[in-house]
Amino acid sequence: MSDRRAIGVGLIGFGTIGTGVVKVLRRNADVIEQRLGAPLRLLRIADLDTETDRGVDLEGIRFDADAEGLVADPAVDIVVELIGGIEAARRLILRSVEGGKHVVTANKALLALHSAEIFGQAARRGVDVAFEASVGGGIPILRSVREGLAANHIEAIYGILNGTTNYVLSEMEETGEDFAVVLKRAQDLGYAEADPSVDVDGGDAAHKLTLLAAMCFGAELTCKEVPTEGIRGLAPIDFEASREFGYRIKLLGIAKARREPGSERIEARVHPTLVPVSSLLARVDGAMNAVAVIGDAVGETLFYGAGAGELPTASAVVGDLMEIARELRRGNAGRVAPLSYVPEMLEPKPLVPLGELHGRFYLRFTAVDRPGVLAHLAGVLGEHEIGIESVMQKGRGGARESVPVIVLTHPAGEAAVRAALDHIDELEDVTAPTRLLRIEQEL
Amino acid sequence: MSDRRAIGVGLIGFGTIGTGVVKVLRRNADVIEQRLGAPLRLLRIADLDTETDRGVDLEGIRFDADAEGLVADPAVDIVVELIGGIEAARRLILRSVEGGKHVVTANKALLALHSAEIFGQAARRGVDVAFEASVGGGIPILRSVREGLAANHIEAIYGILNGTTNYVLSEMEETGEDFAVVLKRAQDLGYAEADPSVDVDGGDAAHKLTLLAAMCFGAELTCKEVPTEGIRGLAPIDFEASREFGYRIKLLGIAKARREPGSERIEARVHPTLVPVSSLLARVDGAMNAVAVIGDAVGETLFYGAGAGELPTASAVVGDLMEIARELRRGNAGRVAPLSYVPEMLEPKPLVPLGELHGRFYLRFTAVDRPGVLAHLAGVLGEHEIGIESVMQKGRGGARESVPVIVLTHPAGEAAVRAALDHIDELEDVTAPTRLLRIEQEL
Repeated sequence: MSDRRAIGVGLIGFGTIGTGVVKVLRRNADVIEQRLGAPLRLLRIADLDTETDRGVDLEGIRFDADAEGLVADPAVDIVVELIGGIEAARRLILRSVEGGKHVVTANKALLALHSAEIFGQAARRGVDVAFEASVGGGIPILRSVREGLAANHIEAIYGILNGTTNYVLSEMEETGEDFAVVLKRAQDLGYAEADPSVDVDGGDAAHKLTLLAAMCFGAELTCKEVPTEGIRGLAPIDFEASREFGYRIKLLGIAKARREPGSERIEARVHPTLVPVSSLLARVDGAMNAVAVIGDAVGETLFYGAGAGELPTASAVVGDLMEIARELRRGNAGRVAPLSYVPEMLEPKPLVPLGELHGRFYLRFTAVDRPGVLAHLAGVLGEHEIGIESVMQKGRGGARESVPVIVLTHPAGEAAVRAALDHIDELEDVTAPTRLLRIEQEL
Repeated sequence: MSDRRAIGVGLIGFGTIGTGVVKVLRRNADVIEQRLGAPLRLLRIADLDTETDRGVDLEGIRFDADAEGLVADPAVDIVVELIGGIEAARRLILRSVEGGKHVVTANKALLALHSAEIFGQAARRGVDVAFEASVGGGIPILRSVREGLAANHIEAIYGILNGTTNYVLSEMEETGEDFAVVLKRAQDLGYAEADPSVDVDGGDAAHKLTLLAAMCFGAELTCKEVPTEGIRGLAPIDFEASREFGYRIKLLGIAKARREPGSERIEARVHPTLVPVSSLLARVDGAMNAVAVIGDAVGETLFYGAGAGELPTASAVVGDLMEIARELRRGNAGRVAPLSYVPEMLEPKPLVPLGELHGRFYLRFTAVDRPGVLAHLAGVLGEHEIGIESVMQKGRGGARESVPVIVLTHPAGEAAVRAALDHIDELEDVTAPTRLLRIEQEL
């Protein structure tokens, strides 16, 4: 540990996270050197917008729009990619790798589609691509799964992986307001993008779940295969009813191993989920993230922290820079398989179809408020052998007005429940499609 | 990653955790090899008790009482020390290191006293000593502080670091029973040792806090310097009153950086603490552990899991074995500074005396139930400029019987509070020493 040569860093993308990285490298230069035994030196920044004042001191740093030049600069040892998006980021990362440079990225959308190509190329060239910031923001969840829990068969993960949706759900529950009202406020406060689709429709969580599932189960998977449902369809009544039944609603990314004799399949899905109020995940409020990881040896663990934001995400990016710098100083790379399993052990594993899930369900029917309706609904559920645990009817409309009728089922197969709902939604007294939410009782 | 030679492991200490290590190595051999790219091979076990049947398959493993022979065996690449205690463990670890063998240990008591000697010797010999299992059982907390959060100035840590005491506190709160009754039950259930002192008096938590404080702050510290108070003095009334005020009582290990112009000091202490019921730490029940780490970039994080037990602790031990095995296959060691800061940056840092703490306090007075007593207590507190936020008097004794009077203070200096209590405990109407508990409001 005696080589104290500074490690050269180049940053592509000088937005919120990029600004946070500059701040952390500046402000914490002392402790970074005390832990690493050498300084990290930010040499260059490239961004198309060279005008905006980011409010950070850029003395000694070359700043221009020349990303290609940065990637080719021999003084740059490690390239930090923070431009986001797919194609330009992919090209710059592959070019960096080709040039023998290590890479740090927070780009989950890219990795959820192209991890095999990027990690494969990096392994061939003997460089590292680190990506802790891409899942859970500042929470060191990828490292923990890959190294700390490496001795375990991972059985399941349950993650609150998107801060925007968790903020919206927390606010909807607290205020009783509609989705649109709360989303608008989240946008005004900067918690949600102008186009919020990738967050509220679950895509961002699916990207992150894809990476976690690869690392937990050695499953080659792309985010396109993950059944994904967002939070747009939720109504204030769903929060009120869930609370009365002892649950809160969270958008969870869930992945489980299904190891059966002769086969290994994976459950992976993103959807709003009822979790017991007594669980730790139920206590994760606002824009915070958390991931529960269940291992066969360690049992239940939980990792909690800020899932996004300038400085928390920068914390993860600079942590990765330090990890690579340690290797550089020892003339090494490839210490640990990026997706936890050595590359030749990663393989496509079949996904369990949603119809094969077995669990309890929250069903919100919308039906005309007329005697006998509930008996009718219950009858159809019974025909499909679905037992009812609780029923709640909120408010009473006038004659022939529609009201919500909420049913919690006993454990049942999802295929049977879907078949029953297909039947029920055709009934004359049912005036809107039934809303189904899954319950995770074991949390 | 093509060298698939098995790594040879020797295990010293075949008790609960040692048995767990054998189970995990056997049962999870497949996933360990899939992640490591090579098998871990347990070659030898040494324990003085060679008779007891541990219920695990020992085929192909040499098992005898010859720890010295194990340490000297050239086929053993990594020695796992799980005998506990100080002197014999220290000798075996140092001998292993001398012989060029890497070491994995769960021995917090040893490291809290002798980390400088052990890590110094390991650095000179170019071998690793890994110790994730020594803090937080299966929770990968040391790795997370050392690597995942390495870019941060750590501001504070708050840990529930001892499962036995957390079990006892959870039970006392839930049942309203006395300490002695609950401790007895914990012993019957195997959650507490026959001699519970190291747990209930806070020593075990102090060992762990010492290691965490070194890693968070680069502070050379031994557990002997950490002010430590256990849970023996707590009474059912403390739980009842705390709950009514909106708190739960947890035995916390707390360490904070006090960075002032020209000086850096450390707060480090172990004591029962009132934490707000709304905090995640308040929700950590039974024998579970959790550590909240606050960093200047990442903000608040929390790591939760089983802090002890056969398989959770084995999860951490085998995770360390895999980390060292990765290095062995690359002909390396010393990847990351064991205590997070490079050794020459570790230094003694002054501890903040408890008298300089500033915060809110829970005070349980025991006083004769007579008109004017409360005014008298309040008067003395006022003389020391200690403001009262709430008062609660539980039950009414007959004339001249003693009753508990509980006061929550506004923020005050601990030295002033101590001076007031010295005065109050001398009053004629005060019949037992006042019980002081600190409140951590920021959790």
